Amino acid sequence: MMEHDAEAGWLRPLIADRLTPFLEIDAARLLNNLQQMQQKADAAGVALRPHIKTHKSVWIARQQRALGARGITVSKPSEGVAFILGGERDLLLAYPIVYADTLTALLQVAAEHQARITCIADSLNGVAAIAAAHQQQPSADLAIAIKVDVGLHRVGVDPHSDAALTLAAAITAAHLPFAGLVSHAGHAYGAGHPAAIGEVALEEIALMRDVQQRLIATGFAPCPVSVGSTPTALAAPVAPGTDEIRPGNYALLDLTAWRLGLCSPDALALSVVTRVVAVNPHYAIIDAGSKMLSSDKGPHGTNASGFGIAVDEHGNQFEVVKLSEEHGFLQFGQQAPSPGTLLRIFPNHSCAVVAQSDHFVLRHADGLAEVLNIEGRGKFI
Amino acid sequence: MMEHDAEAGWLRPLIADRLTPFLEIDAARLLNNLQQMQQKADAAGVALRPHIKTHKSVWIARQQRALGARGITVSKPSEGVAFILGGERDLLLAYPIVYADTLTALLQVAAEHQARITCIADSLNGVAAIAAAHQQQPSADLAIAIKVDVGLHRVGVDPHSDAALTLAAAITAAHLPFAGLVSHAGHAYGAGHPAAIGEVALEEIALMRDVQQRLIATGFAPCPVSVGSTPTALAAPVAPGTDEIRPGNYALLDLTAWRLGLCSPDALALSVVTRVVAVNPHYAIIDAGSKMLSSDKGPHGTNASGFGIAVDEHGNQFEVVKLSEEHGFLQFGQQAPSPGTLLRIFPNHSCAVVAQSDHFVLRHADGLAEVLNIEGRGKFI
Repeated sequence: MMEHDAEAGWLRPLIADRLTPFLEIDAARLLNNLQQMQQKADAAGVALRPHIKTHKSVWIARQQRALGARGITVSKPSEGVAFILGGERDLLLAYPIVYADTLTALLQVAAEHQARITCIADSLNGVAAIAAAHQQQPSADLAIAIKVDVGLHRVGVDPHSDAALTLAAAITAAHLPFAGLVSHAGHAYGAGHPAAIGEVALEEIALMRDVQQRLIATGFAPCPVSVGSTPTALAAPVAPGTDEIRPGNYALLDLTAWRLGLCSPDALALSVVTRVVAVNPHYAIIDAGSKMLSSDKGPHGTNASGFGIAVDEHGNQFEVVKLSEEHGFLQFGQQAPSPGTLLRIFPNHSCAVVAQSDHFVLRHADGLAEVLNIEGRGKFI
Repeated sequence: MMEHDAEAGWLRPLIADRLTPFLEIDAARLLNNLQQMQQKADAAGVALRPHIKTHKSVWIARQQRALGARGITVSKPSEGVAFILGGERDLLLAYPIVYADTLTALLQVAAEHQARITCIADSLNGVAAIAAAHQQQPSADLAIAIKVDVGLHRVGVDPHSDAALTLAAAITAAHLPFAGLVSHAGHAYGAGHPAAIGEVALEEIALMRDVQQRLIATGFAPCPVSVGSTPTALAAPVAPGTDEIRPGNYALLDLTAWRLGLCSPDALALSVVTRVVAVNPHYAIIDAGSKMLSSDKGPHGTNASGFGIAVDEHGNQFEVVKLSEEHGFLQFGQQAPSPGTLLRIFPNHSCAVVAQSDHFVLRHADGLAEVLNIEGRGKFI
């Protein structure tokens, strides 16, 4: 925890205009976060294709588009359906499809709305599954990019192998457009500080350009390079050779971004408003538990010490040290907050918290608020 | 992990009749779990008031009632509304109310449907808030029980203090029925093995009977004693002096219950069906991440090593060692599962997993399945 003189950004008005707990997004902070990233992309001359998995909100995606985002990134086909119905027309599905029927509904909706879908593949199975889905819906505008594993070891071809060459040939043979190379340096979350994150970003682009050059040497036309993670997008300059960046978390940010030195508390746009419901000699208990806050300690094993920092209207801070589903356990020092006290919790991981709720409260600078739907919640397929 | 000869219960048919990932409940295992707990309550002559926060399903609550459950336990007022609308008429709201408006909607629905609500309080604030809510809706059938902290240090009066006497007097002064004493020995999850859990159960009933006796000595009529947690309900005999038990997790069970020695794999009724979407030299990656499995390592800090055990149709086991929102990372030994393979994951904590989804697949013994809603999901207020 920090000195709160230095960290006035913890403090935002706590307005008791609805029952707790609820998810709140600060409109001014959100807009500022969106503008800064767009300016960075514009200045570097690259496309910004934000990952909407962080906010899952059609309204926020629309703000991103209005500021200049060129398309969006989604996690799952059903998330894509929700965003096409919400008005998006250029989607990268950054998830490996290995079973053709998974794509059926998305390609149908895409065809109906003239939306372009770019899928990713890291195996011949994947290319075959995507091609099979396209045969069922040939009027859908569909392309395939190759996912490259730049160090997270989750999805992607080994950049030191010939797998990308094999896949590019298979994509061409399947008569589908080859949309380029895609990576996600999620391991940057584990790098610990901005300088180390910057090195991850440089390694990522070096690996991607190497694969790109080998494709060119084999006879393929130069293909676009798309990279994306919030740590690298915030901590490092956009590297030469990048065509597109795909950060997600930058829209809302969270304690993980703050702990990594990527933002100040002023930039934390998402919080959970909660109320103290019981106090005992050991803990103060609040009405937000794992069902609201998730049990996530941060992306990719960043493993914070607790489950969030709670702040009252005077700036007093309490760490959320334990959770059950409906209760959070706060540690307190000399002075426990009284039952009934409203608190604002800044969570470890915005994406995981937004995934719990069906709607959020958008709080404007004048204190007025509106309730907006989280259209992408609960989309598993 | 265990020898699978000894643990044939891991194996259940994996039927590829829908897109992954999805939540599956085995109807036969569920019914068996419900029957065994009801028989235990009946044999001891106590009421069983199951906590529905585990399954959040109106259909499952109806099965519990048909077998003999006397009322249900809910976590939050909005969960109570969903279950009254689903047909329940006797609800214990096992959550401290400290803000009157939180109860408004529940008391209105309860009054319309002649449902009885028992609230809990552990402070004078709480009694006052509940009484104020009742004044807005005096036709609602409302009672207050006193919550006693028997060791979890979450909610409840100190059983060694006079707080229960003060609260019982306040409840009587507010002209509301005093419904007795309620406890939850959630710390039993940390006891490690059945014998130690049995000791927690004995301490719990001793504390509860002591408070009850002091109330009687002060002039109150003998009041009912309600205790409830799945570990104590499964590991210990129902203690003399108990009037009601309120376990929840027993309906579905999970790896935490299995690790505590409370059940065999045959009893695990809940699983997540998932598919391998990528394989690299480090991990096999599946299409269920924290959004589906939650990041919960077990109730009350039981802290398992991973996020679930995945089993294929041949009984091969893989631990889920890491999660991102949409991806699970499986550790494998000599042989990685191939992309496309279906797996069944038994999670650490059923309650947290059910809280992620809007519906579940109920799989019957003949392999046929139906999709049922999870009416209680997303009820935060």
